[in-house]
Amino acid sequence: MPPLEDLSRLSLNQITTRGWSVREAAEGCARAGVPWIGLWRDKVAEAGLKESARIVRDTGLKVSSLCRGGMFPAASKAERAVRIDDNRRAVDEATVLDTDVLVLVCGAAPDRDIDTARKTVEEGIELLIPYATEAGVRLGIEPLHPVFAADRSVISTLGQANDIVERLDSPQVGVIIDVYHVWWDPELYREIERTAGHILGFHVNDWLRGGGDPLMSRGMMGDGAIELRRMREAVEAAGYDGPIEVEIFNEQVWTMPGDDALALISARYLEHV
Amino acid sequence: MPPLEDLSRLSLNQITTRGWSVREAAEGCARAGVPWIGLWRDKVAEAGLKESARIVRDTGLKVSSLCRGGMFPAASKAERAVRIDDNRRAVDEATVLDTDVLVLVCGAAPDRDIDTARKTVEEGIELLIPYATEAGVRLGIEPLHPVFAADRSVISTLGQANDIVERLDSPQVGVIIDVYHVWWDPELYREIERTAGHILGFHVNDWLRGGGDPLMSRGMMGDGAIELRRMREAVEAAGYDGPIEVEIFNEQVWTMPGDDALALISARYLEHV
Repeated sequence: MPPLEDLSRLSLNQITTRGWSVREAAEGCARAGVPWIGLWRDKVAEAGLKESARIVRDTGLKVSSLCRGGMFPAASKAERAVRIDDNRRAVDEATVLDTDVLVLVCGAAPDRDIDTARKTVEEGIELLIPYATEAGVRLGIEPLHPVFAADRSVISTLGQANDIVERLDSPQVGVIIDVYHVWWDPELYREIERTAGHILGFHVNDWLRGGGDPLMSRGMMGDGAIELRRMREAVEAAGYDGPIEVEIFNEQVWTMPGDDALALISARYLEHV
Repeated sequence: MPPLEDLSRLSLNQITTRGWSVREAAEGCARAGVPWIGLWRDKVAEAGLKESARIVRDTGLKVSSLCRGGMFPAASKAERAVRIDDNRRAVDEATVLDTDVLVLVCGAAPDRDIDTARKTVEEGIELLIPYATEAGVRLGIEPLHPVFAADRSVISTLGQANDIVERLDSPQVGVIIDVYHVWWDPELYREIERTAGHILGFHVNDWLRGGGDPLMSRGMMGDGAIELRRMREAVEAAGYDGPIEVEIFNEQVWTMPGDDALALISARYLEHV
């Protein structure tokens, strides 16, 4: 499998340069020749929704995805309804930002009942389908690493996400594959094959050896344990040729000047992905 | 499902009272009415192997397991052979300590090739079977939470462990189920059913919400997200009625006086397991 030849598929997921505003990130990408950006709703809210859309358009970038909807499980029916409303707003924002992919981080159980939380996630996505269809926005279920099962997502494997996609059977619903969340899975390559035609995004970074807090120790591509190129090959064999987002939560990366981070990302992307 | 009626199945995994020597732990268990102990090889080595066996016998305890063999993958053939030798020594130690269960923490890949590491684990266990059979010691594959896949174990799910048990097809090989490592798994209850007759140990603790370093933030039963009683019920339905080890890696528990820790463990065990 040859390396990627250029940056045409590279997308900066905005969390990777956390210190930057939407404008700074968009201008940074433009300077670095990175054609895509993955936006976060909190940053977009800070800059203003329409203003963010204008900035991205003016810098000539394309928006690979909006992060994030989801968080469906909640203790009360009223709170679950609030979450659905928030997801509808996220769909609206995606439309304004001219991206057709909303990333879903599905949420954790409010109690010990993980089975019920998993059902709530699926029902929540099902409820959103008509609204998302109307808006032309696709819902990307991102399975999160099992280490986040108690706090962020009861959807822990690509297999689970694929089961939901299969059952809901809507062109509006697919999956986001982030190498960090799925690399350890013994069923990974079978499940990537199974998800052919439903991949809405591919996120890269690396899993650093040595432990620590898994939320904040995501690594730069090439610094860790993940077979990045093998995984890209599998995702491409399953039909995905869209943008590849670099999404890194890491204090060290966050303290780098943004332009330096983008230069390193571009180099590592070409070398390792 | 009724709670456990007494402490007759309770075992103190020695790491839970990390500050205690073998003698202190054994005497603490005897004082607290805890009839079983799970020993660690480093602590046994500190006290001396024969002396440890004598202490445990004199205090009237039974040894539920010896922790740990495994760690099969290594960069060179010579180093892999060293690991196998070390596993044979662990089998010998289990015999002297009068336990027939050796816990296997299977090891991580020395490089990015996780598939090869997984094969190395299975080959290593297979190599040990004749020696373990001779000694009457059973090898318990403990799948570790996927968060440890890069550092401690490429066996990340009960399904993988069951696959190995099935392929090796030896009465000497089974699995250890630790709630911390498997609770998140959408296939968990199917896999517990599948492992019927091969469960060699059941470990309890809890998964604390809120993140942090997963190696050191295991919680006391009842403090976290895990459906402990449901899991015990499933393990019992699969035929396991042996000792239940409490294994907690947690700085707060480690700084408690051992007798206090044992009192809390006993109460939480009866309330939550």
